[in-house]
Amino acid sequence: MGSASVEYCNAEEGVILGVDGGATSTICVCLPFLPFSDHRQLPDPLPVLGRASAGCSNHNSVGEDKAREALEQVIAEALSRAGKNYSAVLAVCLGVSGVNNSSDQERVLNWMRDKFPGHVKIYVHNDAVAALASGTMGKLHGCVLIAGTGCIACGFTEDGREARAAGAGPVLGDWGSGYGIASRALTAVVKAHDGRGPKTRLTDCLLESLGLSSPDGIIRWTYADPSWARIAALVPSVISCAEAGDQVADEILSDAVKELALSVRAVVQRLHLAGEDGNDSFPVVMVGGVLEANKTWDIGKEVTDSILKAYPKACPIRPKVEPAIGAALFAWNTMKKETEVNGYR
Amino acid sequence: MGSASVEYCNAEEGVILGVDGGATSTICVCLPFLPFSDHRQLPDPLPVLGRASAGCSNHNSVGEDKAREALEQVIAEALSRAGKNYSAVLAVCLGVSGVNNSSDQERVLNWMRDKFPGHVKIYVHNDAVAALASGTMGKLHGCVLIAGTGCIACGFTEDGREARAAGAGPVLGDWGSGYGIASRALTAVVKAHDGRGPKTRLTDCLLESLGLSSPDGIIRWTYADPSWARIAALVPSVISCAEAGDQVADEILSDAVKELALSVRAVVQRLHLAGEDGNDSFPVVMVGGVLEANKTWDIGKEVTDSILKAYPKACPIRPKVEPAIGAALFAWNTMKKETEVNGYR
Repeated sequence: MGSASVEYCNAEEGVILGVDGGATSTICVCLPFLPFSDHRQLPDPLPVLGRASAGCSNHNSVGEDKAREALEQVIAEALSRAGKNYSAVLAVCLGVSGVNNSSDQERVLNWMRDKFPGHVKIYVHNDAVAALASGTMGKLHGCVLIAGTGCIACGFTEDGREARAAGAGPVLGDWGSGYGIASRALTAVVKAHDGRGPKTRLTDCLLESLGLSSPDGIIRWTYADPSWARIAALVPSVISCAEAGDQVADEILSDAVKELALSVRAVVQRLHLAGEDGNDSFPVVMVGGVLEANKTWDIGKEVTDSILKAYPKACPIRPKVEPAIGAALFAWNTMKKETEVNGYR
Repeated sequence: MGSASVEYCNAEEGVILGVDGGATSTICVCLPFLPFSDHRQLPDPLPVLGRASAGCSNHNSVGEDKAREALEQVIAEALSRAGKNYSAVLAVCLGVSGVNNSSDQERVLNWMRDKFPGHVKIYVHNDAVAALASGTMGKLHGCVLIAGTGCIACGFTEDGREARAAGAGPVLGDWGSGYGIASRALTAVVKAHDGRGPKTRLTDCLLESLGLSSPDGIIRWTYADPSWARIAALVPSVISCAEAGDQVADEILSDAVKELALSVRAVVQRLHLAGEDGNDSFPVVMVGGVLEANKTWDIGKEVTDSILKAYPKACPIRPKVEPAIGAALFAWNTMKKETEVNGYR
């Protein structure tokens, strides 16, 4: 290793920060700098020196001021809990939802440049990068499928290309998302009630979840609050109905599986992640409440099966660590590669 | 006719008000009291003494204060343009969107009671009543299908029963609405762009309508403004694409036709409007921009054809007068019936 690397490795007090700025909250973790050259040598579990959470940092949702505030706050708190200050930081990766182009990246980078000493490595990406890295232990290669309140598939190649599918929000057809599943279930209840659709167990089940006495109340409940997460929270009820044999609920979940698998296939095809003959191996990291529901009707497993049918050598991964740790590992991995390159000069 | 009726008929200066409070604006018309016993004797065109418009009066959209303000303002202006004052009013019908139950009715009734002398007949209904009455010349019987920004089917029987289908807004599956059609078209563009769907002429067509250079801009455009009408305004572009032979656009319109016809069928079945054997005659009034587009790909005609296939004796009507005039005719018709009943005592 070169001198830069040695400098970092010797900095035993040095830390790495990982930030995951999702749709509803922002998490920051502070890890010690890990002097291992390969992620297979990483300790398990990873030592977390400090962890903090704050509100949403997506500038599209909350505006630039609040987004900046959330990021600064969560970093300050994580450092404080770890008993470290800004000068101890060697590298930080921020995976922030709403960061979609270079001007978004530049803006967040400028906020951070004001906070950290000049030598600190700062990486700014979309939160999908944090999610992927949580499954690949920091490596930016493969496809990540995130299905929580929203859904998106993002792919990255080792030579730096990337592609996305879905992630356009509920108005633009993210039917595989928690919001998409739950809004279709609510629609099925309304349709059964007004005579446009078959009777379904979803009626009793969702009315009970919402504390409503009649489907007439659903319209008012739905539009009383524009929060997507509030609607997506009904997904477990939809799964329960499907498990109990309700055909309408079953069809909604099956359609969601198709949409999610289609998103992954679209990304894999555009980036040729499976190689020319479709037989190359690549990671598919699966993240988010919809894929991790741990129910008998297992959406994540169905999506995985569908992907493996198309790409037998795909490696589905359900990460054991949270995306914020993925972000920290990305920072560690990227910094390590950069210093290796410097060392070989 | 009884004495009450004679009193009104002699009141040659007396006027009738009709108010249509829709999703985006509120219209009020002031008609002279028409001393005819049958709507077939009504003059054509109907003499309109005054007409005014104001903002939205749906309390769910703008709150109660603004809703009341819009209603009061539009009535005051229509009267002023007609050169009449409140004491000249014999009857008023307000068809207001968002009026969905008796407590909604009571609230609007109380607002109006403060404005008008005690003898004035005040009728408060959902705006669907105004739309139906615009096709039936004031009679509350049959089914009305409204498809503009939103969509709803409402049916009324002569003995006072009513039923609705759809009208639950875009989150709850109003796919036959202008918003539903346009959001599906935008979704098709996003899907074609990220590899999840077939190429479509909609891409160039909608990007041009929106002044965007790439589909990437669609997400930002869509969520920049929550107004449903703004998205629904893209319907003419979708129709143009379907007329030019685009399969994706054609399928979106065909699905909308199915949804709209299904809404009518659900209402007709629940109210037995077509009688026990499905062969009774009943009006189906078709209202709203989606049904009145006057294009070669004629959504209204396709919906009509589908309804006639199910109910050969249905009478599709495209009204020649606006819903506010329907509301006034409803007031006229209802007042006339009430005074006749009084006369027969």
